[in-house]
Amino acid sequence: MALSESELIKRFFRNCGAQRRDVALGVGDDAAVVECPPGMQLVATTDTLVAGVHFPLSVPAAAVGHRALAVNLSDLAAMGARPAWALLALTLPEAGEQWLTEFAAGLGALARAHDVALVGGDTTRGPLTVTVQLLGHVPRGRALTRTDGRPGDALFVSGSPGDAGAGLAIEQGRLTAPADAAPYLRERFLLPTPRVALGERLRDYARACIDVSDGLLGDAGKLASASGVGLEISFADLPVSRPLIAALGPDAARELALTAGDDYELLFAVDPARLAELERELPQARWNYRQIGVLREAPGAVVTRDGTVMEFSHSGYQHFL
Amino acid sequence: MALSESELIKRFFRNCGAQRRDVALGVGDDAAVVECPPGMQLVATTDTLVAGVHFPLSVPAAAVGHRALAVNLSDLAAMGARPAWALLALTLPEAGEQWLTEFAAGLGALARAHDVALVGGDTTRGPLTVTVQLLGHVPRGRALTRTDGRPGDALFVSGSPGDAGAGLAIEQGRLTAPADAAPYLRERFLLPTPRVALGERLRDYARACIDVSDGLLGDAGKLASASGVGLEISFADLPVSRPLIAALGPDAARELALTAGDDYELLFAVDPARLAELERELPQARWNYRQIGVLREAPGAVVTRDGTVMEFSHSGYQHFL
Repeated sequence: MALSESELIKRFFRNCGAQRRDVALGVGDDAAVVECPPGMQLVATTDTLVAGVHFPLSVPAAAVGHRALAVNLSDLAAMGARPAWALLALTLPEAGEQWLTEFAAGLGALARAHDVALVGGDTTRGPLTVTVQLLGHVPRGRALTRTDGRPGDALFVSGSPGDAGAGLAIEQGRLTAPADAAPYLRERFLLPTPRVALGERLRDYARACIDVSDGLLGDAGKLASASGVGLEISFADLPVSRPLIAALGPDAARELALTAGDDYELLFAVDPARLAELERELPQARWNYRQIGVLREAPGAVVTRDGTVMEFSHSGYQHFL
Repeated sequence: MALSESELIKRFFRNCGAQRRDVALGVGDDAAVVECPPGMQLVATTDTLVAGVHFPLSVPAAAVGHRALAVNLSDLAAMGARPAWALLALTLPEAGEQWLTEFAAGLGALARAHDVALVGGDTTRGPLTVTVQLLGHVPRGRALTRTDGRPGDALFVSGSPGDAGAGLAIEQGRLTAPADAAPYLRERFLLPTPRVALGERLRDYARACIDVSDGLLGDAGKLASASGVGLEISFADLPVSRPLIAALGPDAARELALTAGDDYELLFAVDPARLAELERELPQARWNYRQIGVLREAPGAVVTRDGTVMEFSHSGYQHFL
């Protein structure tokens, strides 16, 4: 069926996200108009998913919609920002109704869960590529950046990194996992959970924060480098899930946790003087994060195990290497 | 040469656009942080250019960079908004240094001309696709929309539509134009001029406004339809350039002006009681626009010539038809 661009937008995306009172003009004009709340700074990010590059072509449309927004929510989480408005640039080979229905359902459900309104976008014909631009806000001067970590800061990560990397390998047929582990791992790749609520709360505790999307070790290195420090990660302290251990064994699970991409967890540095307060206000067991190392004076990123330094050749996913 | 994503961004895009004091945090963290001025609403748009769909693969990289921003500037112009910050999502097959240098030069020159800072983005590998998200602002409640045109309003268009359509045909080898016309027409396709200054000034005079990007007749129909009215365009009043007439003759030139895409001009409706004031404050000869018709009660879009109604089968570019 041939759909015009305006019919397509009206049908699938006009009421896709949350309804927000600060949207003066949403989908349907030349641009969207929204109200930025007083006292707040605007936070903006964009991320693209290319079919066959960022996800296999087998990924269901609802998961593509979810992921396209989730990866951007994760960027705002890392800034301690509250998401508010999204724009969608969708390039697709044809206007398949079923695919669009499921894609919009996946995107819309996550948008509504985070009170994000879809206020505009563009649909074009071409190879399947999804770019979401996400806007949010943060109290003036309070954005969490990568640059303010200091030597001695405790380094934490949320969730259980590596799961999504194993899920991708399962989705691609490169890994076979036990029947009780595979569905969990696959879902962790398909439907990542951006840590928006944690990110907002970390504004009060973290000195520096980064989104773990290209591999924990590489992203930790980026935070350290931006802060002008180094870091040390304790291999034994890496939080890995039971299903990941079931699939790979404990050592390979932790190696994957260090190097695989697609986690969309938060890595953050906290002043050691504030650790007791952090645990009181944001208990680790409830908020699902864990200390994995420290920032240090000496530059570079090292992983230690039983007192010796481990070597890692692949320190994160690089799009152009 | 293999460039990592962060090296690529640092090298080509960190200082690509204007420097603005309201950018608290630009390229290089998980998201950008900017200050929305008090009393203003935020205006946001996004447009994607896909190689081989929106432009032939022969188009020079600098023109791709220029166009990618220009089409978004044109959307903000149609809202009467002032552009401020852009994000770039660039998908490209390989990190070719020469291509990137020229692309960034084309994008950066237009950004600086309009005082737009490039505050963030994402680079990914895949088929060449450029998505720009452009943010700007407008005094609260003053955005120009498509919905407030009324019967009797005078209908104007800026520039000389059809030029870019002929330029595209020349670029694709479908049209041969005289040697003194071809370079002008080709440049009108490659380097469109978004009417940002006109759009901002039209806030005080126009009742409704739309960006002409998919064909004048079709876009005029969208404005009329959104306003709940119809429209009548006088064929003889369509402004066409001398080079377009030289290439096609006067009739085919005006037909192309009605139906070709890629103009990035403004179409706007003005209360007839305000025409004298409009001409005094924004003289047509200086601001380069012209009345081409009127809005009317009867729905639909008609083009008249010598008192008779012309038929048009192709009323604008539809991405999914």
